Amino acid sequence: MNAEIIAVGSELLTPHRQDTNSLYITEKLNDLGVEVRYKSIVGDDRAGLAAAANLAMRRSEIIIFMGGLGPTEDDLTREAVAEALGLKLNRDPGILAKLEERFAKRGFKFTPNNMKQADILSSATPLPNPVGTAPGQWISGKYDGQERILMLLPGPPHELKALFEAECLSRLRAKVPPQHIATRVLKMAMMPESQVDARVAPIYKAYTDVETTILAGAGEIQLHFRCRKESQAEAEARVEELAGKIEDELGDAIFSRKGESIEQIVSYLLQMRGLTLAVAESCTGGLLAERITSLSGSSRYFLGGAVVYSNELKSQFANVPKALIDKHGAVSREVATAMAEGIRKRCLSSYGVGITGVAGPTGGTEQKPVGLVYIALSGDDGTQVVERNFPGDRKHIRTFASLQALEMIRRALI
Amino acid sequence: MNAEIIAVGSELLTPHRQDTNSLYITEKLNDLGVEVRYKSIVGDDRAGLAAAANLAMRRSEIIIFMGGLGPTEDDLTREAVAEALGLKLNRDPGILAKLEERFAKRGFKFTPNNMKQADILSSATPLPNPVGTAPGQWISGKYDGQERILMLLPGPPHELKALFEAECLSRLRAKVPPQHIATRVLKMAMMPESQVDARVAPIYKAYTDVETTILAGAGEIQLHFRCRKESQAEAEARVEELAGKIEDELGDAIFSRKGESIEQIVSYLLQMRGLTLAVAESCTGGLLAERITSLSGSSRYFLGGAVVYSNELKSQFANVPKALIDKHGAVSREVATAMAEGIRKRCLSSYGVGITGVAGPTGGTEQKPVGLVYIALSGDDGTQVVERNFPGDRKHIRTFASLQALEMIRRALI
Repeated sequence: MNAEIIAVGSELLTPHRQDTNSLYITEKLNDLGVEVRYKSIVGDDRAGLAAAANLAMRRSEIIIFMGGLGPTEDDLTREAVAEALGLKLNRDPGILAKLEERFAKRGFKFTPNNMKQADILSSATPLPNPVGTAPGQWISGKYDGQERILMLLPGPPHELKALFEAECLSRLRAKVPPQHIATRVLKMAMMPESQVDARVAPIYKAYTDVETTILAGAGEIQLHFRCRKESQAEAEARVEELAGKIEDELGDAIFSRKGESIEQIVSYLLQMRGLTLAVAESCTGGLLAERITSLSGSSRYFLGGAVVYSNELKSQFANVPKALIDKHGAVSREVATAMAEGIRKRCLSSYGVGITGVAGPTGGTEQKPVGLVYIALSGDDGTQVVERNFPGDRKHIRTFASLQALEMIRRALI
Repeated sequence: MNAEIIAVGSELLTPHRQDTNSLYITEKLNDLGVEVRYKSIVGDDRAGLAAAANLAMRRSEIIIFMGGLGPTEDDLTREAVAEALGLKLNRDPGILAKLEERFAKRGFKFTPNNMKQADILSSATPLPNPVGTAPGQWISGKYDGQERILMLLPGPPHELKALFEAECLSRLRAKVPPQHIATRVLKMAMMPESQVDARVAPIYKAYTDVETTILAGAGEIQLHFRCRKESQAEAEARVEELAGKIEDELGDAIFSRKGESIEQIVSYLLQMRGLTLAVAESCTGGLLAERITSLSGSSRYFLGGAVVYSNELKSQFANVPKALIDKHGAVSREVATAMAEGIRKRCLSSYGVGITGVAGPTGGTEQKPVGLVYIALSGDDGTQVVERNFPGDRKHIRTFASLQALEMIRRALI
């Protein structure tokens, strides 16, 4: 079956706001084997909404409206859909009573504009909103001789998700022909997309029954596999077989097989082996520490670190000899090495990381251009250091440098 | 005039990718006084694209297609629009020659599928692509008796922007009735949206000719003003007058009047006064340092900092006495104060910041729940410390804590 998503709200037509609800809904629909064929964004405009509803009912089997169910004059989804489908709106006394009760409980005044949130399309089932006032609505039946499912859902993301999970998923499962879909995700860091594709394309192209998607961004590559079969076991076996062959080809380059982030993998490996980490950052300015500590419980393996922007602090916090900086410059293989070794010693951690480079856009020279970064990892077995020339802007260079450090830690631990 | 944007590409209908080009186009159109009424996302599907083109030509004056102009079988925008509008596609020999030349220069083979990038709609003006292969196309004229402007633009964001700026803006300016629009943006940090609105609504509601929008997110509130008048001077005067009254009401709470970020304002104030900064972070884990160093040139005022996750490092890097931690706990007013004072002393900076708290989701207790954060700022005039209970998840709490620190620095400097 095919679906169409219509996001409602004039604010979604400005440069400042964007529909993101549809990404969530799309994921849930895909899991059921439903493909999204169209997405539209329509303002708080009754005629425009009615036209969108009409078009969607003609071309899509499942139609999901998101937003425009609130109490204000701008909230017009109910009225527009009623007009487009030739349905009446009936005020539901039970819902009205519940709305009044909800307002009274919170000590809010129940103003008349709130009453329209109890207006239900004549053939619709109201869907209770577990975390907000406006209920959703579900219509399922023939429209111009075609089977159609229409949902009206609230726009605030937490209301949409709670209502969709509580009320829509099981209803959809009962209507959508049962699907057996298996998926796998493999992730790699710091490999060029073209190189990955050149190695894996000959493998996945032989699996015409598995849909393969390559996503690349911020130094990470993801391979998504998806297979639909008569039985779940059959679908699982196919993606498993393909993923296995790709793993044989790429080996250790794959850091995640179950959707984990590289921060999670590094966390897992450090904890499993009872090891600790400390970092000394110059050009990444705290980004590496921030990424590592983005996980709850990171204090079990992350001791801390130093952001050593000035040369004085490189010496004071990471034991980098002033003479070394004078001789090789702050951005050098030698200083990165000394930072990694120094911070490890200072923090008494199993591993130490040192990062120094030119994040730009200013500060580059002919010898040391913007994008040049040295990343060092020091451990019991000694210190390794890599030199990289990252492309892109300041944010991009800092993201790549921190990811390179995480990848070096991961490889040292496997 | 009103516009409609159609983003083309099946990948934009997955949970993994989202159209962002339309935000850029919307901003540019709004600057010209053109409102975006509809946005749609359509897959690489000829019939669907043709239907979208038909609908758009009926309801919108300016129609912008983005994507689907490449050389592959999936790139169908040209063909679909030709079908919908009843136009022919003609292969342009000049464009074809340039494409072949471009490929030859780079040593790439010019495969036959690339030829269709030279196919131009019979009434269209080709728009040279300054940074890619596929040219854009511009049609302007009557359609069913109505004046219409139709643009086909490439999908990759850098190509879209370069082509739109080089070729479309001046053509649009010549077609769109001249508009005189003035805008202003005021920004505030760490104030509840409802409180801001309660104070400013009585003021902006009196300016019915100025459109006021309140945007809130990540602890920041933005007030956007927009006014359209017969002359630029008149429009400027109106937004200036309104912004002035709001500034009188909110005073120092406003940190930005020209769109600057709070990091930029703090940077500007520190540099203007020749002062320096160092930070000691526990629960924010490097986020504050990362935000400060996200600006190029931050080494002029940011010396560095310490991410002191473990108690040992709080003592070692920020001079926090072990006895103080034992007595009050790591998350306490006293330890935040000692961190700010200690890091300032260690780094010999004008200001020192200390942050300690419970970012969660684990680690909270009844006395020290998730969200409790102490933020201290130490300077020549002594040390101030605030206690906050931030709502939300780990990311939210860390973002709020780092913003609170930036706001405290800013207030100390004004």
